This record gives sequence, structure tokens and C-alpha cells, in this order.
Amino acid sequence: MTATPDFMQRALAQAAQALFLSNPNPRVGCVIVAPDGRTLLGEGHTQQVGGAHAEVMALRDAAARGNDVRGATAYVTLEPCAHQGRTGPCCDALVAAGIGRVVASLEDPNPLVAGEGFARLRAAGVAVEIGPGAEAARELNIGFFSRMQRGTPWVRMKAAASLDGTTALANGESQWITSPQARADGHAWRAQACAVLTGIGTVLQDDPRLDVRDIETPRQPHVVVVDSRLQMPLAARLWMPGRSCFIYTASDSAAKTQALQALGATVIHLPNAHGKVDLAAMLRDLGRRGLNELHVEAGYQLNGSLMRERLVDELLLYLAPKLLGSGRGICHIGPLAALAEGPELEFHDVARVGPDLRVRARLARRPAF
Amino acid sequence: MTATPDFMQRALAQAAQALFLSNPNPRVGCVIVAPDGRTLLGEGHTQQVGGAHAEVMALRDAAARGNDVRGATAYVTLEPCAHQGRTGPCCDALVAAGIGRVVASLEDPNPLVAGEGFARLRAAGVAVEIGPGAEAARELNIGFFSRMQRGTPWVRMKAAASLDGTTALANGESQWITSPQARADGHAWRAQACAVLTGIGTVLQDDPRLDVRDIETPRQPHVVVVDSRLQMPLAARLWMPGRSCFIYTASDSAAKTQALQALGATVIHLPNAHGKVDLAAMLRDLGRRGLNELHVEAGYQLNGSLMRERLVDELLLYLAPKLLGSGRGICHIGPLAALAEGPELEFHDVARVGPDLRVRARLARRPAF
Repeated sequence: MTATPDFMQRALAQAAQALFLSNPNPRVGCVIVAPDGRTLLGEGHTQQVGGAHAEVMALRDAAARGNDVRGATAYVTLEPCAHQGRTGPCCDALVAAGIGRVVASLEDPNPLVAGEGFARLRAAGVAVEIGPGAEAARELNIGFFSRMQRGTPWVRMKAAASLDGTTALANGESQWITSPQARADGHAWRAQACAVLTGIGTVLQDDPRLDVRDIETPRQPHVVVVDSRLQMPLAARLWMPGRSCFIYTASDSAAKTQALQALGATVIHLPNAHGKVDLAAMLRDLGRRGLNELHVEAGYQLNGSLMRERLVDELLLYLAPKLLGSGRGICHIGPLAALAEGPELEFHDVARVGPDLRVRARLARRPAF
Repeated sequence: MTATPDFMQRALAQAAQALFLSNPNPRVGCVIVAPDGRTLLGEGHTQQVGGAHAEVMALRDAAARGNDVRGATAYVTLEPCAHQGRTGPCCDALVAAGIGRVVASLEDPNPLVAGEGFARLRAAGVAVEIGPGAEAARELNIGFFSRMQRGTPWVRMKAAASLDGTTALANGESQWITSPQARADGHAWRAQACAVLTGIGTVLQDDPRLDVRDIETPRQPHVVVVDSRLQMPLAARLWMPGRSCFIYTASDSAAKTQALQALGATVIHLPNAHGKVDLAAMLRDLGRRGLNELHVEAGYQLNGSLMRERLVDELLLYLAPKLLGSGRGICHIGPLAALAEGPELEFHDVARVGPDLRVRARLARRPAF
């Protein structure tokens, strides 16, 4: 018997149910199939941090249905964990339940643990097959892979513009260029991010909440603010109970730092040689803090800085079917002396969202992982 | 028996073969099917101006195959013509051949002849059904319908830009933002146009040929130049043997007019109150001259004028996967005082062309026809 693509697809669909839920843990799905290769015995996906992993959820589901999983095959979208966490190693749970075979999409990207789960399974006599669904499983956890393999989050820059690239008129008017459908879609991307990043310019000008409102979500993303001079207002709308706020600054104002810390913010002093925030160092720091996906909703200046320093992995661009001509652009680049100086991208996915177009493009020649 | 969609699809595929060929005549296909409703007897499409129409080509094809078409059904994508042209009325040819039934997608949009072909067929005892394939047949001839029903050509504006809407750097560099695949695709759109329109600024700056080179075509589009001050160089590369060149101007320089006429150009004096070319009047004049589809490849200024005067029907935009930031935009609009002042469009078709994106968007609230 070879791996049945349908069961791995089903496991991937389970994993997708953890999209807004399991951060910063990876989104994993598990499907347990009887030795006949046809009968579904149980399934599940990773829960919130501290909750059960996908394998344990699937075993529980099978038990709840009164199904015997001895000799069964577990389809799982990532290598079962081998470390003692809040729930015990998943590979041990599978072995203890008598699972006969594990089909996994991918090895765990954490270099410290990669392969250990498979080794423990094999040592216990469980057959292991690796590979089916690998691309989709990795894509679903691209931020987790980025953090584990590069040490920095996956950086997705969101912008909304007219078809001719204008995000705001010269007089500043920008609400709303795109449709309610595009805004709701944008909230779904916020919901799957570990944090939303913005600049102090946007906070001072728009006072945005940057939370998920247009769709249902079990958790809110944290917020990161690039605030070189520590101008963050203590009454900004993005302060929310229980929400982590990371403020990166080049200012050493102890008084303002203390005032922000009193509100629960984490203030990180990371200046570069020009008195601004060292953005590359900020990403490494956010990686150390466990952030997988960073959703950037910033203005022309910060977008330009991130893009010029090639710190962006993906552009998530909503294009409205209108022309606005002169005004503010997506990000501050140039004037360039040659076409080849501009950041190069590759179109990844293009979709119609309501009356608008959603274009996902990935930066070419970004650091590989 | 009802109309079989497959035969009309086949007739539409025939019509599409006339895309680069039949201008300014409509692209029409015809498929003749035996009384058994299954056997294809003959098929054909409109030839170059002065050549045979689709119905006659299909009758000839059937004859060449030795097929008897008496009592057969002719699927045709437009009402058979009823006027005496170089080839004789098609409805008479169908009657003379003994065709028993005609299934046509659409009435002829020419208000002077609409329905006459069907009336002549019915009077001769031929059954007539109208409607199948109507939308596709009209779309294939949208310029012909525009000219017949509005009196003006269908105006398609082509542009190539970076994803952030930049068509040229501040220093003027613009070659090449998009890929060879996108340029070849653009040549296919030129090939189906009756004429390519540009502005004198583009002629003076780039000296383009504006002909079809990257793909095979049996005919070249004419060229139209908006040249308010009659600055057209006598040695411009767009002069080509046998090519019609229409120059619209606000200048009354008799000497320059004569020099251009000596080269074979048609010079049309159509000033507006501001000493520029009256663009709306130009489109009406081009309609009277029999142009169906106008393919605009112009610069920022003329694009802006056409767009601001709402004279554009469709934007054909190639977006390259790169960011170029500040520079020249697609068309000169604004600065606007409110978002609602910008031209509104609707996305019509989005496709990947090589590494680039091709976006076709139609102007909302353009004059209906």
C-alpha cells in the first residue's frame, strides 16, 4: 500500500483549521486510518499554545468514536514532536496507542530536534514514510519554517492601492480605496500572523487598532511598532488588554520607556548608525521572541525602508479597479538610476476578492531557508 | 432538435481565426451541419476585406468535400449579410444552396441592415434561430459593435508598468519593464486592432514603429497620431509602405500638412477650444472612417487626456513583478481632491503572461452600446 493522497489532503485541511489558532506553534493536522487503508478512525489539529497537538487530538477523536487504532496509519503534516512539553511527546503517544505506520509531510525544521521524532518512532517499530504533502505543509507554516531555519519571521507587507499604484491622494485621503471584501480578506491575513507591525507615522496619523475585527478569530495578533524617537501615544487605540506590544526605538528616554512599560509594552532599544531603528536586528530579535509571521501594515516610509533593505518576503497587495494618478505610492523607493535597482518579485498567487484584485508576490533573491 | 452548443462553439473558433484578418469587417465563423444534426459538412471564416464571408467559405468548403448541404443547418456567429457587396449577399448564397435552417448568434448591429438578413432567409422558407453564442460573438467583435452602435471605435489603452504603477524611471528609462512574453502578447493585441494610436510626444521621444513584429499576422494595423502642433517628423520609423497614417492636429500649417500628405498621411484638422486636438471628435471621425478597435500606446500625457475625458473603454495593463517607486505613472490624472473623482473600472480578465501579470479592466460608466 502506498500513501493515499486523499488522506494527506484531509490532514492538510485539518492543519488549515489551526491557521488562526496555534501560533506560534506550527499548524499541524493528523488523520488516523484503519489497517484496511480506507476507514477513517480519528482526526484533529493543533490547539492553542499549551493545548494538545494534532496527533493527540486525533487519538482522542478515535477513542471518542470507540475506534481501535492498533496497527493503524497516522497521516500527519509535520514530524511528530519528541520533546517533553505540556502535553508529552507526540511520538510516544502514537507508539503507546499502537499506531503501526506514520506518513508525515515534513521533518521538523527546528535544527535541534529535526528527525528525532522519526527516529523514536522507528526505534519503536513504527514504519515511517516522509514526503506526501510536503509543499503544502511547509507553505501553511512558512513563518514557522522561516523562524526555525533563518531565525527571523516571515515578513508579509500588506498594501492597498489603486490599479495605478496610488495608496493615498496628495491630500492624504485613503479611506477606502479597496472594498469591504478586500478589507475582510486583509483581516484574515492579520489573524494568521503572530504580530502586526506598523510605524509610528501610521500610529500618529491614523491611530489604527490593527486588530482582527471583520472575521472571527480565537486570538488577536500582537503588535510591533517601529518608533525611533519613542513618540508612541499612551492613549493610542492599539493598546488592548492582554495584547503584547513590542516597541522598537532608537531613543533612550527612560521616562517614556517607563511610561510605556507601565502600559505593558516591551520597549527594545535597537538603534542603527543613523539614529533609526536597526530593522534587520529587529527581525532577528522578533525571531528570538518566537514570532513566525509578521504582517506589515505601515506607511510609505517604513514600507520603503523595509523594501530597500530587502527585509520583506512577500507583498500582499490589494488593487482596486480605479485610477487615482498622482499621490502617495506603496513604498518609498528611488528615484532609481536603473530598472535593475528595483526590488524584483515573483507573482505567487492572484485572486479576485470582491471587485478588487489580490496579488501576492514574493521577493526574488530574498535570504533562502 | 435544439441548437447544439458544440457546433456554435466550433463556429466561434472559426470566427476567432479571423481575428487578425478581417478588419474592419466583423470576425464571423460558419459551420454547416447535415440534417442528421451530427455530421459536419463544411466550415469557414471571414477573409480579408474584399474576400469571401464566413457563410460562403463554409459553402465552398462543403462543396470541396463533395457534401450535399440541402436541408442542412448553418451555425453562424452573426446575422448573414443581405447587402450587395463584392461577394453578393450571404443570405442569398445560403438560400441558393438549399440550407434549411440558420442558427445565428446575433443580429447585425448596423441599424440600417439589422434583421434584414434574417427576414430574407425566413421569406425564403429557411428556419431561423437567434441567440446561441451571443455573448462570445459580440465580445469577439466588440469594436465592430462599438462603431456600429456608438459611431466610435472601441478604445483599448495598453500600458506596461511595475507592480507599483511606474512606467518609466525619473531619468526616462523604461525599456524593458515587462518580459518578452508580455511584449509578444501586446503585439497580438496590436494585430487585432484596426489602428494603433499614439501621441507626438511618444513619436519624438521613442520613434516607435508600432507595427506587429513579435507574432505572425496577415495585415498590419493603421496608425493614428495625435499631433496638435504638427511636429511629426518626415523620417519617423512608423512610416511604412501601404500603411495608412491618420494625423490629427490643431495646427493649420499648410506647408507641413502638404509635406505629410506627400508621404501618404491623412491630416485631419480638429482643434478644440484650447488649441489641442478635440479627442472626442477624433474618435467620431475614426468611427466614420471605419475603425473598429483602437489600440492606444501612448505616454503619460495623452493617456491622461483620454482617461480624464472618459474616452477609454478598456485598460490593457501588463504589470511586471518589480517595484520601481518614484517615476512616471500610467496616466496623468490628478491631483484629485477625492477618491471618487478617479476613473472607475471593473476587472474583466486577469492572466499570467510569462513572469508578468496581464490585467484587462473596463471603464465603468462608459457610454453604453
